[in-house]
Amino acid sequence: MTDRPLLAIILAAGHGTRMKSRRPKVLHEVARRPMVGHVLDAARAAGADEVAVVISASGDQVREAIATDDADTQVFVQAEQLGTAHAVDAAREAFAGFDGDVLVLYGDTPMIRPETLRRLREALSDGSALAVLGFDAADPTGYGRLLRDEEGALIGIREEKDASADERVIRQCNSGVMAFRAEALRELLPRIGNDNAKGEYYLTDAVALARGQGYDVAVAMGEEAEVLGVNDRAQLAAAEAKMQQRLRDAAMDGGATLIDPATVTFSYDTVLGPDVVVEPNVIFGPGVTVGDSARINGFSHIEGARVGPGASVGPFARLRPGAELGENVRIGNFVEIKKASIEDDAKVNHLTYIGDSRVGAGANIGAGTITCNYDGHEKHHTDIGAGAFIGSNSALVAPVKIGDRAYIGSGSVITRDVSAGSLALSRAPQEEREGWADRMHARRGRDKG
Amino acid sequence: MTDRPLLAIILAAGHGTRMKSRRPKVLHEVARRPMVGHVLDAARAAGADEVAVVISASGDQVREAIATDDADTQVFVQAEQLGTAHAVDAAREAFAGFDGDVLVLYGDTPMIRPETLRRLREALSDGSALAVLGFDAADPTGYGRLLRDEEGALIGIREEKDASADERVIRQCNSGVMAFRAEALRELLPRIGNDNAKGEYYLTDAVALARGQGYDVAVAMGEEAEVLGVNDRAQLAAAEAKMQQRLRDAAMDGGATLIDPATVTFSYDTVLGPDVVVEPNVIFGPGVTVGDSARINGFSHIEGARVGPGASVGPFARLRPGAELGENVRIGNFVEIKKASIEDDAKVNHLTYIGDSRVGAGANIGAGTITCNYDGHEKHHTDIGAGAFIGSNSALVAPVKIGDRAYIGSGSVITRDVSAGSLALSRAPQEEREGWADRMHARRGRDKG
Amino acid sequence: MTDRPLLAIILAAGHGTRMKSRRPKVLHEVARRPMVGHVLDAARAAGADEVAVVISASGDQVREAIATDDADTQVFVQAEQLGTAHAVDAAREAFAGFDGDVLVLYGDTPMIRPETLRRLREALSDGSALAVLGFDAADPTGYGRLLRDEEGALIGIREEKDASADERVIRQCNSGVMAFRAEALRELLPRIGNDNAKGEYYLTDAVALARGQGYDVAVAMGEEAEVLGVNDRAQLAAAEAKMQQRLRDAAMDGGATLIDPATVTFSYDTVLGPDVVVEPNVIFGPGVTVGDSARINGFSHIEGARVGPGASVGPFARLRPGAELGENVRIGNFVEIKKASIEDDAKVNHLTYIGDSRVGAGANIGAGTITCNYDGHEKHHTDIGAGAFIGSNSALVAPVKIGDRAYIGSGSVITRDVSAGSLALSRAPQEEREGWADRMHARRGRDKG
Repeated sequence: MTDRPLLAIILAAGHGTRMKSRRPKVLHEVARRPMVGHVLDAARAAGADEVAVVISASGDQVREAIATDDADTQVFVQAEQLGTAHAVDAAREAFAGFDGDVLVLYGDTPMIRPETLRRLREALSDGSALAVLGFDAADPTGYGRLLRDEEGALIGIREEKDASADERVIRQCNSGVMAFRAEALRELLPRIGNDNAKGEYYLTDAVALARGQGYDVAVAMGEEAEVLGVNDRAQLAAAEAKMQQRLRDAAMDGGATLIDPATVTFSYDTVLGPDVVVEPNVIFGPGVTVGDSARINGFSHIEGARVGPGASVGPFARLRPGAELGENVRIGNFVEIKKASIEDDAKVNHLTYIGDSRVGAGANIGAGTITCNYDGHEKHHTDIGAGAFIGSNSALVAPVKIGDRAYIGSGSVITRDVSAGSLALSRAPQEEREGWADRMHARRGRDKG
Repeated sequence: MTDRPLLAIILAAGHGTRMKSRRPKVLHEVARRPMVGHVLDAARAAGADEVAVVISASGDQVREAIATDDADTQVFVQAEQLGTAHAVDAAREAFAGFDGDVLVLYGDTPMIRPETLRRLREALSDGSALAVLGFDAADPTGYGRLLRDEEGALIGIREEKDASADERVIRQCNSGVMAFRAEALRELLPRIGNDNAKGEYYLTDAVALARGQGYDVAVAMGEEAEVLGVNDRAQLAAAEAKMQQRLRDAAMDGGATLIDPATVTFSYDTVLGPDVVVEPNVIFGPGVTVGDSARINGFSHIEGARVGPGASVGPFARLRPGAELGENVRIGNFVEIKKASIEDDAKVNHLTYIGDSRVGAGANIGAGTITCNYDGHEKHHTDIGAGAFIGSNSALVAPVKIGDRAYIGSGSVITRDVSAGSLALSRAPQEEREGWADRMHARRGRDKG
Repeated sequence: MTDRPLLAIILAAGHGTRMKSRRPKVLHEVARRPMVGHVLDAARAAGADEVAVVISASGDQVREAIATDDADTQVFVQAEQLGTAHAVDAAREAFAGFDGDVLVLYGDTPMIRPETLRRLREALSDGSALAVLGFDAADPTGYGRLLRDEEGALIGIREEKDASADERVIRQCNSGVMAFRAEALRELLPRIGNDNAKGEYYLTDAVALARGQGYDVAVAMGEEAEVLGVNDRAQLAAAEAKMQQRLRDAAMDGGATLIDPATVTFSYDTVLGPDVVVEPNVIFGPGVTVGDSARINGFSHIEGARVGPGASVGPFARLRPGAELGENVRIGNFVEIKKASIEDDAKVNHLTYIGDSRVGAGANIGAGTITCNYDGHEKHHTDIGAGAFIGSNSALVAPVKIGDRAYIGSGSVITRDVSAGSLALSRAPQEEREGWADRMHARRGRDKG
């Protein structure tokens, strides 16, 4: 472990034209977090004290997303896209007077792990000027190969086109992720030229320059999956699949049962307690916590919600942001809960919309109940007392307060508060016209005949 | 490219007993289109001017399906199932006076691609009398092997049982798909005999006959996946999986994000615009078009519907045939839309059934709204004006017209037209019986005690 | 085949700490049946006349589950966990006077198949004292290797740590499952010692003891997948996946179409008739039978229900225990059926809750109908006659009886019985306040302005 401060520079200026999108590439999401956000999290988790993101001149959406995500992150603009060294140079103010280590990362590699970055950075501790993150490629075609001497020290990086037949069989490849001592970065960066086919400045050239100066260059190895960049929608889907696999494994390792893990979609921040059971076909959006021994049944869609211990949700439940479920609450099928606190042991079992509400402990909400929270202009609050019973197919027109233990007759429209322990209902009398249906069917049958 | 006319003969007379179905094998669906329909589409896309389908004597269901699908397709009956040459002979009227090329295809190979058929047909352009579609089998066991001479010309096809040890290692196999110059087909077909174990007439024998006559026989290669026939439900599921993979790749390539592609089920004709995002667990039935930047949330089931640009659908939305959603429309959870036009910016967010209706631009349909479109005999229309607000849990009894900007009170049953800008409601007064619930619970508690 | 009686001893005393669960390991479910239940079923299906289960001192939950499942199963307590031989010894009363064969199985191997157990048991018929179930390990690391002589007879089992380099490459491994002649088990078991690193008594040692006595030891081979034990949630998920694969293959082999088999979740006892079509994303809980040619659409969740021939269910249907659907019944979207008989040709198409009810043949239940079956204390019954028409958004307050062919007006709350062929409704008159909405919007707009 080192005490030197750490700066991470995340390159996020690429246009990503192969995404065929109006959204900047690094803002495409993996596990419901923009790719650049994953890289940012990994940098922070690896100990970065400061983070700088380099965006393109048209990167306002990225700037805004980063400002919202983490106001402490510095943003630099790379006016033209002239290569990775040029991009790092755009952030030179960040490391101008910096006495520490600098990580260079990519905004389109959302799978990069903090432990890998820590290892890369620690590779500098032998006095190396810089360190390269390598990986064993299943198929090295197209990657720069790591050339090592007999002791394993890095001699250089050979690009595909310049590689000899012997070099082409090397499977250790360059990920592009690098760590520098800041002083070495300041020394080497200005010397990188653009005398190559594309006329671009490549950060990789720092390796040869460093060697030429007699500096040591270290190597740390990562896994191929974590260093692969995302360039099109298929690669985005592949990154998503790998991230989901990580999240599923972590959930199971924590003692949750996922009956069919491949059908459960997590967000980056989903938290499941021990002995939680998740049926197949569940989607967790951001901001979900599920307590101990709760059960999430199939076809549930949960976002921004807390599910209490022992609660049961779904099938076919929709929990939207602000849904707070207490212990042993039961939310059944075709039920939507939004910005509402459902207190312990309450039941909302069928075909119901509860929004902007409190449902007291032990209350029972009948099938087809609707809290009418919106009047076309504003949202209003519904308060349902502990132990209340709301008869089926009732409409509660907010703002309205149903007292503890009150009882609402089926099919009522409740527009005024109901006192505790009372019955309230609104109901037109039942009329019957004897034989009407038989006569109607006969007549309609004749009409058609 | 050739200017000769092209006839495709699709053999679809097999009984498919291993399907264990009352439905003819070729009518089992892949990506919501009967298998024979996929073959028909491939033939047409490969340039077939005429298509003939050979069915069995009990193939009335197939005849009907083909007539509905494409009235220009000729249908021939093969009275008995006596082999592929016998089946082609059943369609001899189609090529009797035909001066062009003839493709012979199979109704149970839904994965066959137009580009492969084009390549097979073009193989005739070197003057060959016929051309065989081969493929490299992962495991050639059971297939006829392609025997080639040193120049690569096809000498013959060796069936598994007749193959020497040397021949058995050949991985190039015969798919059964063939292209003929019509004149060659007319000459060779009558000479094919049935002197074999099963006493059947095999079209493959045309290869040896042609070679015996001194004709050249060409070979074109396809992929194993596209020539495999479907014979049981497991193979049907495998074909479905491969077709879905094609459709998913095409969607992503077109700029749509599929968060978990393996959980999105397409129909053969689904169209997604650029920057569309599809959450996991979505089913597209036939006839769906989704506009630019729309979002389809999880657990949505969409068929015969158009979704406008920027619209948001689901989770838990059901769009049925005739649903037409304008720009930026929002369809939320537990909502069913059938044969209805939902105009720009309108919102139908919760627990609602809209059928046989128009919902005007910017209208807001409250939770639990039902358009009562069916009176037990006929369907009727509901017209909701632009900017109207339908309070929750309302029933609109069609035929009925709600004017622009009208406001319907929650829990109403609306049976008469409402004028523009007005409030309408039907509501019984709310009554309260104080303490009734407490007394009832006490009494019921005593009864049980 | 043998006529000797068969006893199966299932070891189920392991604590399963790696599951991180309060539930005993063997009660974790695979395909909705506790793992030990699968082993019990396999033992019975393999011909076991008696079954004994060995639980730990803290195994009360297991004892209870087994008593509920099969009262004929004997349960023995192993006070301390001192090895497999010690566990079998805990059940010695079961085989003390038993003249037959004894199988020793494990409660955490739910994939074990009856045919494998039969083969293992029949391996005793050559006069062997005992038989070992082996398997070919993809990676044998960590397993005991089966040592065979030139004739293939089992010489012994070599544990990983004692194996030579030559022995380590052996892929035939010991599953731990064994069959004994009861007399041999009685003779060998007391001789097994605990002179090993952990001080435990291993049943595997019976092999060496038997050989030392000059007895023959037979081997039968199973598949790796069926003998792997479940020790953590990831292995539980893997076992679930394999079991689902078996169930899916069996369903397709029986003539059902699973459009995307990987997305259909079966229970161990699901029964599908021929020509049933199951769309993607369906969950079958325990106790489901689906008749001939029925269609189960996507996003359906079905448990404890019978679906009649030709019926159509979903999408978004929830059938709960006691749902009984007749022929050609149609259950549509966002519909929940619980403990209700839906008779032939009846339709319940949209946003409905039917509980504790009968719906007569050909009845039509409108969108948004709720049977109000619970009054806060008890459940009551709703009876809907044949050919009745329930208008949309109606609440039927049970107990209540709707006569045959009766017609309920939309939006009614029905609290009293309705006679056959009559119309019933409860409806407040529709009022209109002209221009109210326009004035309200103008005022609210001003308030905000």
